[in-house]
Amino acid sequence: MSVYRDRIRSAGELMREHGLDAIILTKPANLLYLTGDGRLCAYAMITRDGKVALGVPQTDVDDVKSMATFDDMVGFEDEVGMIHSIAHYYEHFGIRQGVVGLEYAFLPQPRMGMLTHPHAKPEAVAIKDCTPIMSELRLVKDVDEIERIRVAAKVAEAGMRAAIKSIKPGITESQVAAEAEYAMRQAGAADFYRSYVASGPRTSIAHGVPTLRRLQTGDLVMIDLHPVVNGYSSDMGRTVCVGEPTAEQQTAYDLYVKALETTIGKVKAGVEMMDLEQTMHGVFKEAGHGAHIFGPPIHGLGIEFEESPLPAGHAFFHGEKAPAPLVANVVIAVGNCGLYTGPWGVRDEDTVVVGTDGPIVVTNYHRRLECCV
Amino acid sequence: MSVYRDRIRSAGELMREHGLDAIILTKPANLLYLTGDGRLCAYAMITRDGKVALGVPQTDVDDVKSMATFDDMVGFEDEVGMIHSIAHYYEHFGIRQGVVGLEYAFLPQPRMGMLTHPHAKPEAVAIKDCTPIMSELRLVKDVDEIERIRVAAKVAEAGMRAAIKSIKPGITESQVAAEAEYAMRQAGAADFYRSYVASGPRTSIAHGVPTLRRLQTGDLVMIDLHPVVNGYSSDMGRTVCVGEPTAEQQTAYDLYVKALETTIGKVKAGVEMMDLEQTMHGVFKEAGHGAHIFGPPIHGLGIEFEESPLPAGHAFFHGEKAPAPLVANVVIAVGNCGLYTGPWGVRDEDTVVVGTDGPIVVTNYHRRLECCV
Repeated sequence: MSVYRDRIRSAGELMREHGLDAIILTKPANLLYLTGDGRLCAYAMITRDGKVALGVPQTDVDDVKSMATFDDMVGFEDEVGMIHSIAHYYEHFGIRQGVVGLEYAFLPQPRMGMLTHPHAKPEAVAIKDCTPIMSELRLVKDVDEIERIRVAAKVAEAGMRAAIKSIKPGITESQVAAEAEYAMRQAGAADFYRSYVASGPRTSIAHGVPTLRRLQTGDLVMIDLHPVVNGYSSDMGRTVCVGEPTAEQQTAYDLYVKALETTIGKVKAGVEMMDLEQTMHGVFKEAGHGAHIFGPPIHGLGIEFEESPLPAGHAFFHGEKAPAPLVANVVIAVGNCGLYTGPWGVRDEDTVVVGTDGPIVVTNYHRRLECCV
Repeated sequence: MSVYRDRIRSAGELMREHGLDAIILTKPANLLYLTGDGRLCAYAMITRDGKVALGVPQTDVDDVKSMATFDDMVGFEDEVGMIHSIAHYYEHFGIRQGVVGLEYAFLPQPRMGMLTHPHAKPEAVAIKDCTPIMSELRLVKDVDEIERIRVAAKVAEAGMRAAIKSIKPGITESQVAAEAEYAMRQAGAADFYRSYVASGPRTSIAHGVPTLRRLQTGDLVMIDLHPVVNGYSSDMGRTVCVGEPTAEQQTAYDLYVKALETTIGKVKAGVEMMDLEQTMHGVFKEAGHGAHIFGPPIHGLGIEFEESPLPAGHAFFHGEKAPAPLVANVVIAVGNCGLYTGPWGVRDEDTVVVGTDGPIVVTNYHRRLECCV
């Protein structure tokens, strides 16, 4: 568990830098990172001196004991009990004034209201956003985290293989997603973020949530998978064709792969996210398709399939600042960007570890406009 | 599409009552309810005069046209474009002052910040929470909505059958979830909310997110499924046993089913949620298990598998007031409440339509501590 104590110590240093006395976390990904356990309806109050107090549903006390790193724990019966337990910890740690960090980018107002309820928070304690602290902590992955992402990448490959194998005219997008998800769970995923399967004209929309649309011969099919294995994600997307692609589809796909591979080739410590984005978009523009691009092509991943570093154009939405140049052992997904040269789109996406001298691609399914059936 | 125009008209009436000039929605469930299309990264500005303006990713314009009811639509390229498009609609509708409703219970601060950005919202326009309006609108289901929930209930039954059939020593919780999800997608689900599969000691925790734990002979296994079919959910849970249950497990389960059936028997128009909760908890308390209960047993469902009416103890968390007495054609899940008489828990849950004279149970999988293997 020393890894969690180390992370908690680093969190304390950042709290000092940001003028915080403690943080209260409820976002499962942040709880998992700092304590080893990230469950729903739980919270951790972490002081800058490195003390960790947990509050969990009463039912979960024994289970959490076996999973999490902590100094104090209470079980609560309901919302009121949760609020009172927070007041108890403020008292316990002697925090009667000062500043406490909350996850502004995660908490809608009612939940923010619970954590700052007058029965929970001393009136003289101010609150401040701790999103930048948690993003900074989680940005650079250690060896174990990268290994977990590698395993998740293998699981994504198994899911992609099963999805592509299932493709034939008449199957629904949802059924293709079923094959991918089933294979990912068989291969060791305990969970996954939403699987995207979009076909035909739906390959041109921004978020290809699967529907009951039935695949037809000639359709492109865009599949994007995000398994969670040992708490960590990977992100891989591929576009394939039901039957033989047209020359126009093949040309668009080949251009996309050229752009993707050129961009991945530039990934290394010191590069700016924006340079990578301009590289990818630049290949499309040079081929006369500047008007056929949508979306920033790169985002970070780790515990979440989309996390810091986030592109400037998405950062506001997520409550983040524009990212600094990439450093070694940040993990990114490259290719989250559609190219729409016809009444359809193409998109491949891969998970890449930023190496000191170059990219380390961890999702290794072949890039080819595979002809299914 | 007249159903959406009727709903938009009702929304306008509620806006008048609440002193709102317009609402801006980004929550997919609310967008789906009022426009017929609920996608990610989109918004609708709806005036109290019943005008609907949509903003969607540029890529999605054609797709949305075929799905949604609206008067105006713009496609945007990025966050900045989205903000400017909102400013455009304020101008278009002549809203220079007054009050606009936002989904406080859904929007974390960065997203709230986008919708209220000085480049989007006129300074003289105040904002207010529109969560209560949307909850009131969606509370009572029409015939078509109830039919969709019935179909989703059949899909949950198919998922449950497949999950239970797969149970044997050595299979992981995640693999059991895989069987349920696969069967639900085959049966017509386009999506599902997180499936819970908890086994052995994990049946006692509040949220049984599946893990890689392998089932053992003698384990109880709690399965809770939430398919989405035609945009609507059902919610069904069952507890089964790997091999023969012990007498203590059987007794706990029989008590649970007695409590569940007694509670469901009292469901009808006019009943208070709290009465139903006290009925269910009362059966446990009478049997000497008052200390072994966790959680309020009832919540509403519809487009979301958990929506208004919410129990008083959860309502705060979701930004809702305590609910009024139930009325006909509200749909609820009964049984979202664990009984923990041993180092394990039991729980069955069913989807029930509130009838004028009694309950209409739509999830019909048998209630029996099924002995698997």
